[in-house]
Amino acid sequence: MQFTINRQILIKALNNINRAISSKSALPILSNIKLVLTEDTLVLTGSDTDISIETKISVHDDEANLKIDSIGGLALPATFFTNIVKRLPGEEITLANKEGFQAKIISGSAEFDIHGQDVNNYPHLPEVEIKNNLQLAAKTLSEVIRQTVLAVSKQLSQPILTGVHFILGGGNLTAVATDRHRLAQRTLAFENHDATADIIVPGVSLVQLQGMLEAVETVEIQVATNQVIFKLGPNTTFYSRLLEGNYPDASRLIPTEKRTTLTINARELLQTIDRAALLSHEGRSNVIQFDISGDRSIISSNSPEVGKIEEEIFAAETAGDALTISFNPDYMRDALKTFGDEEIQIGFKTALDPFTIVPTNNEHNFIQLITPVRTY
Amino acid sequence: MQFTINRQILIKALNNINRAISSKSALPILSNIKLVLTEDTLVLTGSDTDISIETKISVHDDEANLKIDSIGGLALPATFFTNIVKRLPGEEITLANKEGFQAKIISGSAEFDIHGQDVNNYPHLPEVEIKNNLQLAAKTLSEVIRQTVLAVSKQLSQPILTGVHFILGGGNLTAVATDRHRLAQRTLAFENHDATADIIVPGVSLVQLQGMLEAVETVEIQVATNQVIFKLGPNTTFYSRLLEGNYPDASRLIPTEKRTTLTINARELLQTIDRAALLSHEGRSNVIQFDISGDRSIISSNSPEVGKIEEEIFAAETAGDALTISFNPDYMRDALKTFGDEEIQIGFKTALDPFTIVPTNNEHNFIQLITPVRTY
Repeated sequence: MQFTINRQILIKALNNINRAISSKSALPILSNIKLVLTEDTLVLTGSDTDISIETKISVHDDEANLKIDSIGGLALPATFFTNIVKRLPGEEITLANKEGFQAKIISGSAEFDIHGQDVNNYPHLPEVEIKNNLQLAAKTLSEVIRQTVLAVSKQLSQPILTGVHFILGGGNLTAVATDRHRLAQRTLAFENHDATADIIVPGVSLVQLQGMLEAVETVEIQVATNQVIFKLGPNTTFYSRLLEGNYPDASRLIPTEKRTTLTINARELLQTIDRAALLSHEGRSNVIQFDISGDRSIISSNSPEVGKIEEEIFAAETAGDALTISFNPDYMRDALKTFGDEEIQIGFKTALDPFTIVPTNNEHNFIQLITPVRTY
Repeated sequence: MQFTINRQILIKALNNINRAISSKSALPILSNIKLVLTEDTLVLTGSDTDISIETKISVHDDEANLKIDSIGGLALPATFFTNIVKRLPGEEITLANKEGFQAKIISGSAEFDIHGQDVNNYPHLPEVEIKNNLQLAAKTLSEVIRQTVLAVSKQLSQPILTGVHFILGGGNLTAVATDRHRLAQRTLAFENHDATADIIVPGVSLVQLQGMLEAVETVEIQVATNQVIFKLGPNTTFYSRLLEGNYPDASRLIPTEKRTTLTINARELLQTIDRAALLSHEGRSNVIQFDISGDRSIISSNSPEVGKIEEEIFAAETAGDALTISFNPDYMRDALKTFGDEEIQIGFKTALDPFTIVPTNNEHNFIQLITPVRTY
């Protein structure tokens, strides 16, 4: 095979493909990028078996300026090949495979010869039977991921909780994640009332997908038996394995009663929590305390080995019973970051019940929940 | 003690002091910053015994807005205290030591209580007898450090070579560093013809010092028996231990004969070397090769396990014998970076002799030397 292509366009494609390449993959061939050249298209593929990404560059793409001299295929070491392409001097790059699995790469005055592998040893992408075909604005999907993926479990001992649960039906899409200490749930109206789906997508897949959403307007989502496929524009396809099993019913965790509420700007509260966490992180138990009363609300942390901090917070509104509650500041920081500069309402039942954080302008469709720490 | 100060000014001072704080210090007290408050000045000190830095903030400094309520002293954990000051909400910060070694830190609505230590347990700065008092533009000193410190040895087994050798005399200041594989030497005219000095300053001290030079115009340098003191403006003093012993005579290493010369832009050659290093780093021996001839000069690297690279370089001028020479690309990259975008002349004697790199506009005062690798 032999082709010439605009170097910047190839770099963009490689940056996407590398999101699927893991240095820890069990199959050595998967540390490679698969290149296949047909009559009119260069197809690049990367995979770690959980995530696979495929990008096509057509001869009809003016910016790419792809010129195909002869068709064929080759697998090239992902990191090394990408670093070479990034450092080459020319505006264009020519790649040729003339003998064995050698790639000759020419750009400007530089000429690399690197060893590749037989493209036939590269595993095939899963063949899937599409059950569903949905459309979503890329911006919306990115927001839903950002708002929920923080709460997935990092414990591989509870595999089902390492994913985000998406439920589609009755004109609503709900995304929920929980690690049993906290929960994040987002609901949004979905135009297509007949569409239904119930899938659990690994958090790590969603984080990689999110990084590719900025470049596109709309995402087409196809659900298959144990795969979900995100089509990002006409040329890029993102495959993710689905998690199998029953996701726990999250709605039961969310308390319905609020005996104490506090309305406050999320960013200002985050700064106070950041300061308190400076101290709690130095101490033995990473806990901070919230004392809420109509007069004066205080965030504090006390670690006998290190010292203490106390800061008054200025809520826009406080209502209900006085309350003292302890919690992990890192869960609170993660949750507060999802609200940006918005006004939020924090709702408490008792010092032992989970508390909820909702945006005051959209309290029914987005909720963060945190379980307190029992300190007495 | 109790004082109030502008928070940004305190952050700037702490950033400087932290350059002397090592997390690996043998003396636990040295993980602290020493604060001493006199009638009119706050003195901050940090040290890892090799480097000590002292900064004074006066009540007469309008920007600092220092208000002293009561004098005294306290040692506070450097990293923790600095992080707190950086995160505090107010424009000013008040620090008070009322009982024991507790510090109460108040800024805006936040109030920290942290544990300090007895300032009397903090070691005293070395008392030194000044032998010399020199002045140098901060920009010049920074340039000399940048041009030479790259070549100091990282091997603690040859302690004397971990420093830069400064020789002052006869109206010239020479700085030289070598790790026996490469050498960097810079000479500059020195106004004061009577001044003499011969000291070896640890490379790690110079790197930290360099980071503080941008903020000042002139540096006063005082040499004592086993210390050198850099006065950065009226308020900040940087102490460094000197290395003791005889520095090898570097001038003998520099070949006087040039049988092949190559004149080229340093930045363009650096980019070619960067590409060749991509390949040599993947291979077993980190070596690249230079083939010079009047017709065509080539940089190449060949690692049978990985592949090979070949790139023609376009010299402004090539003169003398054709030559093939091998060398470590990392030494070459470090050396080339010190020339920025300047035109350089590389001078070779034979494939077994060290070669030199000099700027064409200042060939007698600045030289980088690299020893080749024997590959046959």
